[in-house]
Formats: sequence, C-alpha cells, structure tokens
Amino acid sequence: MTLVYYFGQGKADGNAKMKAELGGKGANLAEMTSLGLPVPAGFTIATEVCMDFLENGEKYPASLEAEVAEALAKIEAAMGARFGSKESPLLVSVRSGARVSMPGMMDTILNLGLNDVVVEALARNSDNPRFAFDSYRRFIQMFANVVKGLDAHVLEDALENLKQHRGVIDDTDLNAQDLKHLVEDFKGIYSRELGEEFPQDPQKQLWAAIGAVFRSWNCNRANKYREIHGIPNNWGTAVNVCAMVFGNMGETSATGVCFTRDPSTGENVFYGEYLVNAQGEDVVAGIRTPKTLSLLQNEMPGVYEQLNGVRLSLERHYRDVQDIEFTVQDGRLWLLQTRNAKRTTQAALKIAVDMVHEGLLSRKEAIARVKPNELEKLLHPTLDPRAHRQVIAKGLPASPGACSGRVVFDSKEAEQWAARGEAIILVRDETSPEDIAGMHVSKGFLTARGGMTSHAAVVARQMGKSCIAGCGALQIFAKDRFFKVGKLEVFEGDWLTLDGSSGEVMLGKVNTREAELSSEFSTFLAWAKALGVMNVRANADTPRDARAAREFGAEGIGLCRTEHMFFDEARLPVVREMILAQNNQERARALAKLLPFQRQDFVEILKAMQGFPVTIRLLDPPLHEFLPQTERDIHNLSTQIGMSVDEIRLRVSQLHEANPMLGHRGCRLGISHPEIYEMQVCAIAEATAQLHSEGVDAQPEVMIPLVGHAQELKWLRDRLEILSAETYKSASAALNAKPKTEGIPFGTMIEVPRAALTANQIAEHADFFSFGTNDLTQTTFGFSRDDSAPFLKVYARENILKDDPFAVVDQEGVGQLIQWAAEKGRARKPTLKVGVCGEHGGDPKSIEFFNQVGVNYVSCSPYRVPVAILSSAQAALQ
Amino acid sequence: MTLVYYFGQGKADGNAKMKAELGGKGANLAEMTSLGLPVPAGFTIATEVCMDFLENGEKYPASLEAEVAEALAKIEAAMGARFGSKESPLLVSVRSGARVSMPGMMDTILNLGLNDVVVEALARNSDNPRFAFDSYRRFIQMFANVVKGLDAHVLEDALENLKQHRGVIDDTDLNAQDLKHLVEDFKGIYSRELGEEFPQDPQKQLWAAIGAVFRSWNCNRANKYREIHGIPNNWGTAVNVCAMVFGNMGETSATGVCFTRDPSTGENVFYGEYLVNAQGEDVVAGIRTPKTLSLLQNEMPGVYEQLNGVRLSLERHYRDVQDIEFTVQDGRLWLLQTRNAKRTTQAALKIAVDMVHEGLLSRKEAIARVKPNELEKLLHPTLDPRAHRQVIAKGLPASPGACSGRVVFDSKEAEQWAARGEAIILVRDETSPEDIAGMHVSKGFLTARGGMTSHAAVVARQMGKSCIAGCGALQIFAKDRFFKVGKLEVFEGDWLTLDGSSGEVMLGKVNTREAELSSEFSTFLAWAKALGVMNVRANADTPRDARAAREFGAEGIGLCRTEHMFFDEARLPVVREMILAQNNQERARALAKLLPFQRQDFVEILKAMQGFPVTIRLLDPPLHEFLPQTERDIHNLSTQIGMSVDEIRLRVSQLHEANPMLGHRGCRLGISHPEIYEMQVCAIAEATAQLHSEGVDAQPEVMIPLVGHAQELKWLRDRLEILSAETYKSASAALNAKPKTEGIPFGTMIEVPRAALTANQIAEHADFFSFGTNDLTQTTFGFSRDDSAPFLKVYARENILKDDPFAVVDQEGVGQLIQWAAEKGRARKPTLKVGVCGEHGGDPKSIEFFNQVGVNYVSCSPYRVPVAILSSAQAALQ
Repeated sequence: MTLVYYFGQGKADGNAKMKAELGGKGANLAEMTSLGLPVPAGFTIATEVCMDFLENGEKYPASLEAEVAEALAKIEAAMGARFGSKESPLLVSVRSGARVSMPGMMDTILNLGLNDVVVEALARNSDNPRFAFDSYRRFIQMFANVVKGLDAHVLEDALENLKQHRGVIDDTDLNAQDLKHLVEDFKGIYSRELGEEFPQDPQKQLWAAIGAVFRSWNCNRANKYREIHGIPNNWGTAVNVCAMVFGNMGETSATGVCFTRDPSTGENVFYGEYLVNAQGEDVVAGIRTPKTLSLLQNEMPGVYEQLNGVRLSLERHYRDVQDIEFTVQDGRLWLLQTRNAKRTTQAALKIAVDMVHEGLLSRKEAIARVKPNELEKLLHPTLDPRAHRQVIAKGLPASPGACSGRVVFDSKEAEQWAARGEAIILVRDETSPEDIAGMHVSKGFLTARGGMTSHAAVVARQMGKSCIAGCGALQIFAKDRFFKVGKLEVFEGDWLTLDGSSGEVMLGKVNTREAELSSEFSTFLAWAKALGVMNVRANADTPRDARAAREFGAEGIGLCRTEHMFFDEARLPVVREMILAQNNQERARALAKLLPFQRQDFVEILKAMQGFPVTIRLLDPPLHEFLPQTERDIHNLSTQIGMSVDEIRLRVSQLHEANPMLGHRGCRLGISHPEIYEMQVCAIAEATAQLHSEGVDAQPEVMIPLVGHAQELKWLRDRLEILSAETYKSASAALNAKPKTEGIPFGTMIEVPRAALTANQIAEHADFFSFGTNDLTQTTFGFSRDDSAPFLKVYARENILKDDPFAVVDQEGVGQLIQWAAEKGRARKPTLKVGVCGEHGGDPKSIEFFNQVGVNYVSCSPYRVPVAILSSAQAALQ
Repeated sequence: MTLVYYFGQGKADGNAKMKAELGGKGANLAEMTSLGLPVPAGFTIATEVCMDFLENGEKYPASLEAEVAEALAKIEAAMGARFGSKESPLLVSVRSGARVSMPGMMDTILNLGLNDVVVEALARNSDNPRFAFDSYRRFIQMFANVVKGLDAHVLEDALENLKQHRGVIDDTDLNAQDLKHLVEDFKGIYSRELGEEFPQDPQKQLWAAIGAVFRSWNCNRANKYREIHGIPNNWGTAVNVCAMVFGNMGETSATGVCFTRDPSTGENVFYGEYLVNAQGEDVVAGIRTPKTLSLLQNEMPGVYEQLNGVRLSLERHYRDVQDIEFTVQDGRLWLLQTRNAKRTTQAALKIAVDMVHEGLLSRKEAIARVKPNELEKLLHPTLDPRAHRQVIAKGLPASPGACSGRVVFDSKEAEQWAARGEAIILVRDETSPEDIAGMHVSKGFLTARGGMTSHAAVVARQMGKSCIAGCGALQIFAKDRFFKVGKLEVFEGDWLTLDGSSGEVMLGKVNTREAELSSEFSTFLAWAKALGVMNVRANADTPRDARAAREFGAEGIGLCRTEHMFFDEARLPVVREMILAQNNQERARALAKLLPFQRQDFVEILKAMQGFPVTIRLLDPPLHEFLPQTERDIHNLSTQIGMSVDEIRLRVSQLHEANPMLGHRGCRLGISHPEIYEMQVCAIAEATAQLHSEGVDAQPEVMIPLVGHAQELKWLRDRLEILSAETYKSASAALNAKPKTEGIPFGTMIEVPRAALTANQIAEHADFFSFGTNDLTQTTFGFSRDDSAPFLKVYARENILKDDPFAVVDQEGVGQLIQWAAEKGRARKPTLKVGVCGEHGGDPKSIEFFNQVGVNYVSCSPYRVPVAILSSAQAALQ
C-alpha cells in the first residue's frame, strides 16, 4: 500500500480523482503536475495515515519514514536543492488538505527547513538577507504556535516591542539586522517558554510539522466545522509537503489568486488579484491592497500570457470554473493550488448555462452543478452588503428575503398604516388565520413563537415575504405597543429590518437590493423541468399566488386552501353567521350567501392556472378559528348579526378546544356539517361549468382533508360526487354549454398516521393522495409545530435530531409511512396519483426522497417552485 | 338439502347444535324432543329459506311446499288431530326464532287453523265454547295485524265498544255468545278494511303466516335491534310451526316460566311463576298476578314433580341454567321452549363457581361463561332499582357506579364543602390536573366536555368514582354558580345523582346500594388469574390506589404517574418556584425541596406493592399545567414566592401552548430540564435503598414518557442510569445496608407513532416498552381525546367508526403499530418486556388483541383489574 504520493517534473503518483486518499489539494497538485503545468515538486501523505496516527497513540505506519525519505529525495532532485544544505538548501511547506475544503480550520507551516546555518545560505543565494531572516522568524513563529502550541501573542509581543524600540510601524520597515536579532530573541523565548531548544535538524522539524497537521484534524474548530457541515470524523486529512517558492524575492516576484471566470457575475473574463514582492500571507493580512489581474498583463506580460494559458487549459480540463493560487518567483510562474471556484448563485447559473452553450458541459451536468436552495435567493430582495447593520436579535430564518418597515403589533393597525402608504412589519407572538388581512399589507413578519412551519412562516413563504419566526429574545407587550429585547425597547412606528434568509433582526432601515431574474434563469429552469420525473405544483390560495407560481414554472396547484378565502373582510361576518346559526335554515341561508363568493374565487384561480390541475382542499380548520376572540370583536359581531353578546360568548367557549390541531376540523367538520362541503363542491362545479362554457381549460380536483379512516372518505365522497356531477350538469345546461368533463376527481390528504397505515382501504375511494407532510410530521412525532421550537432548539444542540423534521422530511419515521402508503395505495389502485403538498415539497433533501418512493408531484409555495424543479431534476439524475 | 326439520314423539331432525340453521328456539325444541321430553310436535323451516324468500321477491324454494306438507302430516299423526278437521282439528302456532334471541322483535301467530267450522269443533271437543270463540277472535286479531298489517287498534276498538255496550271491564267477563258476535264483527271489519274476506282455508292461513314471520326479519325494530347488537342482517329467522297446546282450558290447565336456578342470586333453587287457566299472553299482559312456582307443588303435585325432573335433566344436559316455558293442558305438561337463562352478574359468578364445585363445569368453562365487563358492576354502588328517578340529561358513561351529592363548580369550593362533611359532585366544563384535590373529596364528576378518556374520566376510573363526561346538554355558568339544561337551572348546593354506568344525570337524591364482594368473586378471580397468560397490573399513583389494586388482584403497578404528586397543596408552590426559577441555582434549590416529598411518595407506593414491579413514569405534562391561570392565583403565587405579578404573567404566557398534547412535555421536558428527571431518579433510588435496607422487596422500574426517537431515550438513559446506580449505592452505604439490586430497569412508553415505527432502534436502549394507548390513539388518528366527543358522536351515528377508539383499541391502525413495535422491539432485544398502560388495558376486546400480539402485561385502573384478569384468562383460552 502506498502511503506517500510524489508529484514533480510532469509526473505524479496521484490524480484529481483521488480526493479520498490525497485530499482535494493533493489530488489537484498531482493532476496539474501530470498536465505539465509548473507545480513545485512535492508529495502527499495519504489521509489514511492521519486516522492511523490519531488512533494509534500518534505512531506512524512502519513504512512511512522510508517512503517520505524517498519522496523528499525526488523533490531535491527536481528542484536542484537539498534539505538542510549549506549551499543550495531546499525549503518546504507543510499543509493540510482534506477530502473537502475546510478553509482555515487546520494548520499550515511554511519555510520549513530553515535553521541558523541554512538561513545564511538563503541570504546568500537570494542576495536578500532581509528576506532570509524574515522567512526564518516567520518559520519560528509558526512552528512554535502550530507544532508546540505556544500562545501566538508571546512571540508577537516580542516583535511589537522591537518595532516600538525601533520606532517603526510596519514589519516591512525592519531591516535584515533587526530581523536577525529578532530571530535570536525568538529562539530565546522559545527555549524559555517550551523548555527545549528550537530544533535545528530539518528532519525533526519536518516530522514534528507532519504530526501537528495530522493532530489539527481533531482541533476544536475543525470538529465544530465538520459537525456543522456533516463531514465524517473518520475521513482524516492528508499532508502536502511541497518545495517552497517565494513571491517575495523582489520586484520580479509576485503572488496572487485568480478565477477563470468572474465568480460574482459568472461573466467569462479572467478575474483575480496579485501583489508584487509578497507572500500569500500578505494578501490575507490586507496591509497592502492587491492589484487587479489585468495589470499583470503590463507588469509581467510573459507571466500573464502563461497564466492565461493555464486558465484556459485548467477550465477545459476540469470543466468548471477554477480558483487558482499562483506565485511568481523571480519571473517564473508556479501554481500552488487549483480548485472549483465558489461563486454566487447568479454566477453559478450563468456559468452553467454558458458552459452548455460553449459545449463544455451537457445539460445534465449543468443541472447537477447548482444547489437548489440557492435559487430562491434570486427571487427575493437582499440586504445591501455594504450597509451598516445593528443586529438586535436572531430568530429562525423562516422565509427568505430582506425587508424594512415600521413596527406594528396588530393586523387592524397594519391595515391602517398600510393604507397611509407606510411600509410596515408585523410583530406578534404568533399569527393566526385571522391576521391574514394584516399580513397581506405587511412587508414581513416577525414572531416570538413558532417554528419553521408555523402559520406566519408558511403564509410568508406562500406570499413571498420575509419572515423571522420563533425569535425567543422578544418580549412583546402588544397592548402597550412595544417590545423588549433585553433592555432595548422598540415601539410602534420604529423602523426595523428583517433578513429572512439569516434570521437577523436589525434596528433601523438597512438598504436592500431588489431581485432580478436573468435570462439564464429561465433557460436553466426550462432544462431542469425537462429532466425532472416529478412534476412541481404550487400551494396557492389566490389568483395572484397562482400567477406568481406559473411565472416560476409551476405546473398546477397542489394545494388551494379554501379557508383563507373565508377570512376576507366582506365574508367573515357571513362565515360567523353560518357557524353561529341556531338551526339548519339559518345555516343554509348563510351558506347561500357564501356560495357566490366561493364560486368567484374558484373561477379566478382556475382561470389563472388554466391547462393545469388545481387541487382544492375543502374547509380544514376548526370553526372556532373564525370566531371573534376579543371582547371588542364579540361586541361588534353582536351588533352585526343581532345575536346577544352572552350567546356569542357561550358559543365561542363551547367551540373552544384544548388541542385544536387534533380537534373538530377537516373531514370531521365535513361530516358533522355536510352543508359546508356541499356549498363548496357546488361552487367548484358551477365555476368549472362557467369556465368550460367560456372555453377555459379548468381542471379542478376536490381534496378532502384529514381523513384517517376509509369510511370518512367514502361517506363524504358518496354524497359530494353526485352533487358535484349534478351541479356541473345543470349549471352547464343553464349556460347552454356542452359538458366537458366526465367528473371532477376526488382525493384525500394523507396527513395522520392512520391514513397511511390503512392506505389500501382509503385508496379504494380516492383518485389521488396528497401527503400533508406538515401534519403528518406533527402527528407521527407528536410535535405541535407551534410549540416545538423551544425543545427542537435543544434537540439540535444536543444532536438528538439531525434536521428539523418540519424542514427536512424524517425518512425513518414519517418517510416510512409515506412509502408504505404510496405502495399500499397503488397496490389497491394502480392509477392512483400521489403528491406531496406539505412544506417539505420545497425542500431538496426531501424531494430526493419523494422521488425515490415514486411520488408523482410535489407542491410548494410559489417562491420555492424553482428550487423544487431543480431538486426534482437532480433527483431524477441520481 | 333439507328445508324443513320435523320434531315430535321423541324424534327430531335437528338438534341443539343447529342454531345457525334452525334458530335458537327450533334447535332447542328439536333437542328437547330427542331427549324424550314432552314437546308438542312441530317443524322448523330453516333460516336460509328466510333470506331466500326476502331476496327473491317473496318466492319460496320449489321443494318447500312438499316438505311442509309432509311435516304437517307427521304433526297430525303425532297429535291425533287434523289441520282443518271438523272433528278433531289441529291448531298450530307460527313463531319466529333467530340464531340469537331477539326478544319481541319479530312476529308470532297463535291458534292458526281456526275458521268458522273448526271453531265449532273446538268448542265441542273442549266442551268450552267461550274458550273456542275467544281463541278464534284472538287469532283473527293477530292475523289481521301481523299478516295483513291492519292497525291493531281497529279491532281493539270493536272489542272495547262491545265491553262498554255490555257494561263489563275485563275481557274475561264476556261470555261465549258475546265472543261469537265479536268474531262476526271482526270478520266484517276485516273485509271492509282490507277489501277481502278473512281466509277460511287453514293452508292459506299457514302460508300467509309463514311469509309474515319471514318478512318481520326486516321490520324496523328488528333492523334497529340487529344494528345495536351487531347481529348480521343476512342470518335470517327460522319459522317454527308447532301444535297448539292450551293452558287456558280450565282449572287443570296452566302456563308458566321457570328457571333451573335463581337468576338474581344464582342460588340453586327451582325458581319461577305460573298462572292457572291462562295463556302465555295473559302472563305478559300482567292483569293477573302469577303465583310462585313452589305453589304448583301443592296445586299440581304430579306436574310439579315432572317439571322438577325436566329442570334437573335440562340443566345437566345443557350444563347451564335454563329458562323454560311450559304449559299444562288438562293436567298434561308440555314444554314450549328452553334457553340459557339471563342472569345478574352476581348470579353468573355464583352459578359458575357452584357448577365447578358440582362437577358440571370445568374451571375453564366457568371462566368462559362470565362477561368480563359485568364484573366491574360488582365493585361499585348501584342505584336502588325501585327509587324514583328524574333524568335531566345523559352523557357518556365514563366511570361506573352511582352516587349522589350536592353540586359544586370548582375544586376549591369542593374542598370547603367536603370539609363541612357535605357529599358533593363536581360539575365542570372539563377538569385538569389542577382539580385533583377537589376531585379527591368529591363523590363523582360531571363534565360538559371530553370523552371516555378525558382527564375527568381517567381520574374517576382510577379513583373508582362515578363520572359522566361529555354531557353536551349542560351549559355551565361556573362564575355565577349554576348550570342550565334546556330551561332547567341547577344551582350550587342542589342535589344531583349520577349513574356512571348509564350516563344518566338525575335531579335530587336517589338511593343507592353499596357494593358487596362475595366469596365466589375471590374464588373466580383466583381461577382466572391462574389461567391468564398476560399479567394484570394497575395504574395507580397513590398508596391508597395501590392497596385497592392489590385487593382486586393486581400483580404490580404498570403506570405510576408522578405528576399528580406535584399537585399536592403543600408542594405546588415549590413546583411553581422550580418552574419560574430565573437560574439554575434557584431551580436546584426548589428541586432539593421537592426531593424528600417524592422520596416519601415512592417509599409508600413501593411498600404497598412490595413483591411486585412498580413502573414509575417520570414527569410527563407540560410545565404550564402547574402554573396558576386565574388572576387570583397569580396574585397569591406572587405573594408566596416573591416574584412580581407581571413577571409571573409573562412566564405563564410564554409557556402557553397552542396544542399542549403535542407540546413541550414528556422526555422533551426531561431533556431540556434534565435536573427534574435527575431529582426524580434520585428519589426513586433513595426510596428503594431505604426499603431494601428494611427488608422490603421494592421493585421500581423507571419509565421515560413520550419517546419518539431512539436518541431521546439514549440521551436520558445515559445520564439517569449512572445517577440511579450511584445514588442507590451511596444511599445504601449511608444506611449500612448491602445493595440488593443490580440496577433499576429503564424503559419507555410507546405512545407516538414514530416510536412504534422505529421500535427496533428504541429497543436498544429500553428494558421494557409500555404502550400508552391513549396517546397513541390520539396521535395515530389525530384525535384529541378532549375535543373529539362532538364528532365521535356523529361517527357512531353514521357508522363511520364501529367502536370509540378510546374505549376499544383500533386494531387496523393503532393495533398495527402495536404489533409492529412489539415484533421489531423483540427482534432487536428478545428479553424486552412489553406492556400496555393506556385505558385499553382494562377493555376486554382490546385485551384479547393484546394477548394475540404477545403483550406480557396490561395495566388498568384498579377497579378494572378484575375485568382485565378475566379478559386475560378468556383471551388465553381462545
């Protein structure tokens, strides 16, 4: 088994595919070497040695020493220099390099090989004693800190003292003599602090550095980084030992970073920056301002031309935009690293589309390149990155996009402020369907309670507005119109800015940038749509949402909730009249008043989505959600409908529920009050007949919510299907139109475990299943989405749950039910259509799972539609 | 295929086992005939003919006519009489008889065969013209009503007119001449009303009567009866045609009913009553008071002796108590029916035990004879059946037993009234754990909301008190201290009586009878316990409950809830202090105060249940349940613990939950506030060490509630198990005692679907599973037990759900999860102990299912323990 992989002079033991063994950096250095590019010779110690070392009491495999010696000898031969030589000494860098990039998390040691003798040779050979001693003191600093764990400021203090003593400000103002003394000071401090002399033997230096880099795999920040990014702890890091080249040897030397295309815009221009007479560290330190790459063309035309050649060949070779580190030593170009460049979403899209057009990539490859979640950012305003921000609290990033507005604490106020033309932000403990009107006129919502699928969050995503939920730091005193964060008090009318993508709440007005959709966006989405197996629909309750969804590529509506229609100001009193009716006549009268409203709703939404199916869910929430809760509202209603305040109060209290989520709602309501669903089904049938008579291809589907037992669905379908057919027929006849449908399909939500467990029985009465994964997650876990934020926070911290199950579908539990239900349902009825309309329908990881289990379509909020389309395409490609 | 089964003169085509074909009555008539007992000859038309007749447009199978004719000829031969004969005519009865008794639901026609000529022969032969014409007019009445559907009062009016005209009150005061005229009147009315003459042809009469009896299978009341009793509609009824015998032919004739033992007490005495010179109808009509059977011994000693012989042989033959109908015609005994006697629970137990002692039955057979649900009645007071009752409303029979008391509307008042020695009944919209103290001192609870497993219902069953829940007719105005039912107003202090077994709410004080346990009860339970495979434990939270449970035969505690201990008046302020603590020190201080209380709780309960396991569930409810809700209580608490009212209000509102059932409770609380469970586990370990040091065999088990993910259980067990072991060790050491346990077992509730779905993973960290079937039913269906009563009522009415899933476990959904979890759990850990501690642990149907899926024990409220023991035994026998 090879443990050490050499590269140099056009030949390499490894290649770019060996990232697992060599880490990203090592694999790419080998690849570039084989391509004939100018890479300083070096070798990579494989990642497996790391785990071996860490698990076996820091002992190395027996063969390692010999392999390293052999590889080192090859470097010496290649570079014409010798490790520890008094004449032409070889210096090396020792760097980490894991399978995936963990920038800055692990350790690096440069200029290794220097000692009291070698430094003199370096001074001589470079004819630059200042450079030589500066390199030596840097090496001692790094070695003491990284290898020996000496607190960095101990040696830095000595440097500062020297500068004060010499009356200079910058390191660069110290001369060779100063630095020579500094080296002596450093060695003195080193031996005092660490109880041993600074090692003069380059071999000892080398092995100590290798061990330190391996050890740094397990340092705190690296562990934390892996935890956050889900990187396995047993991958280990490679160690890259490379001949040093110096960009700081004078005016013919330089160091820089370049990108084969602009990583911000994606434009196909050579982009980068460099510093003459500098080392990489200096670029990072930011003391001197680097120059843009184009200037190099004048300053070092030969090097530039060579670098441009490297750019073209690396991009063509890797078929992706590269981020390249280079050093020019005395007019000679060296490449130190190449990797796939990080880029903005906008750039990623442009690059992917351009590369397809350039013939560099296939469409499938282009689709696989873009992270779905990134797409949504393009649809929402973002904060101006240069603007000052005063972050006062952080909540859950519940709906992306940035917005500013003035604080308002209730929905009624919100409407009044908005009517005056004010931009407002609605701040509440939590929102409820009664707040819909106020939410419509707000720029964004901020809630103290609730999680990623709370009412506020779901509505915000649907409307494409910003939302920060579960911001526990807020103490809201709505009656007194202010909230507190710690000691800070924020009053009604104060300006606030929300970043719904990060969860940050900022005081004052921070400038935002509007979203703009590029032509590449449309091209890219069209490709993705063609590749996906699952269709993507939107959850949309209004014609406006439906139009937005179509614009973003939705092929139908998977969930049209009818309850939001009931909260409209003009209708709510009638809805309440219906609920409070004392007898069937009164109720029928109220429902008759609601029917024309509902019909008009359906006409508009079916028209907006013509040519695609629209799944209309019959009334779902418990009736008490529509009743007034405050004394003021109860009194108003009493005046409006002529029922005594006491009577209303009594009915409100009778309808109160301990756990409304598990209460008298959904099909339970439809069965106990069949007249409500009957009205809705009539409205759907009449709307459809009307549109069909006008030549509009309306495709409604009726969805019964919360079914847990086949009998529930059968009972309702038996009644509603006949009614629907007859109503459609008579409405068509009244319009002198020929019927154009054989019947409106009926289906059900699968959103309680029992429905999934008995899916075979339920399928008998359903044309389609739509998994309501929010409620299914609530009932499968026994988690209330409105109440789980406090403990889910603890669960995340304690690693009890990897993902928020309301954001990423829980495959082991909820997913098992979904898979079971889809299989059992189809076994009973092979034509059964299966969709997902919960929030997970817009989550890439979840979509991948839904694709695996054979779901036909996912439905998500309009602004997630592009994300879902891309996820569906990627899932199909896997 | 035989359609007609003859019986007579000691020979019969059928037998007692053929109830499916012949119905109960026909099968037993055949059996008695074969036994050589005096049964009038007759035949039975099989039940299948009924379905055939009803489904094929009331046509009979081709062969039926010939078979009937043949059987009729045999009757004639046996009885020495001929159908329609002018000399010695045969009369027959035509009766229904289904596979199971449906008393009074279907039709019967007596005296068939009479016509204008035959009646004269009957008058002559009997030398009793009055008897003959009375029989004829009865026959016309029955025939017109049953066969022709003539409204009964039409002919009765004619009879009444005649009586008025003749100036007599009783039918018996009419003489032969009167009745002869009445017959003429009847025939006239008959032809006028029905447009046809009364049929004179006995054959026509017979076939019309057979058809009418078959048709009566489908009459409304029979359909309704079958629906209620779950009798399949396709069983059909048999028709029994039997030679008439007459108990009304003079002083040597009689008719009566007898039981082989006393059906009220079970005593082995010959029990019954009879009327001389009467027909069965007369006994039912209740005009004459029947004599007790013992008098027959003097009046007709030969007949009595013969009847007593029949009693002994039938009981021995059927090995069960018989209910026998007999007629004495002119000194000759005839048996008309025998069947297993209905009996009281008390009698059932005594009979079963006595019959085992008499060698009539095996223990297993005795065990199978008693209905488990009946047993509970023996443990509770019952209403005096003779007392007057004014029922004002009916709710769910949530906890059995009758009680009277004065109405009180809140828990605090309840305590005050009870302290004054008043018997009280707590009336509330619903109860919560905060009401526990008031519930303890009440005789029973009446709630307007909630179902069979609401808080009130569960606590009532546990405490063995009466409870009527979900009594929707009640409008409670607690603040004004009265409730309304319709227009009736009931005020605080008014007397109310509850029958928790029927759900009836009665105004005033109705006398009750105390429960008494017989020695047979203990014997019977001991036999059952020996036969059951599953153990039976009790759900008990107090030493008092634990003792009651032991008395009723419990072998351990399957669920000891610790939260009720927190509501004790002395502790609640400390609990609140702990919840509202601002920092860890404060919380630790409060918990340290609670620990000695908890330890003492556990000492007492473990001692009461010594020698048996006690499963202690760590704190389950959300913390806000312990906080004050009313302004008064908030102010009191503020004074008690010195926290500002505003601060308390804020914390109460912060802890408020939209759906507490799915909220921050159970193990979620244990993970976010580990110090609470730590305190509880220390208290358990210390209590155990103390008892062990005293030589008491304490067997605690720690149960973690609401686990849905293996990581939750692992996280908690990792912490608590070590703590438990160390605490036990150090407490033992402090007492100078040798440790007597290797470790307290840890297990979990399986009460959310995800736990069942991932049971294999969870089993890895659990010594036992206990199915919390209440919560599992709530989450699997998505039904809140507190809010589902209104729609479950509709579901029952509409036949959507056969059983209340909170009363009888839903095998298709919840049961599937239980079976899956038990299998997966044991596959991972074969030693896993599996129990059930939800309310279903006391339900016979559910217990049968639990036995099937291999549950090791069920746990139920103490008063259901006998029911569960018997159910477990019966399940094992199947």
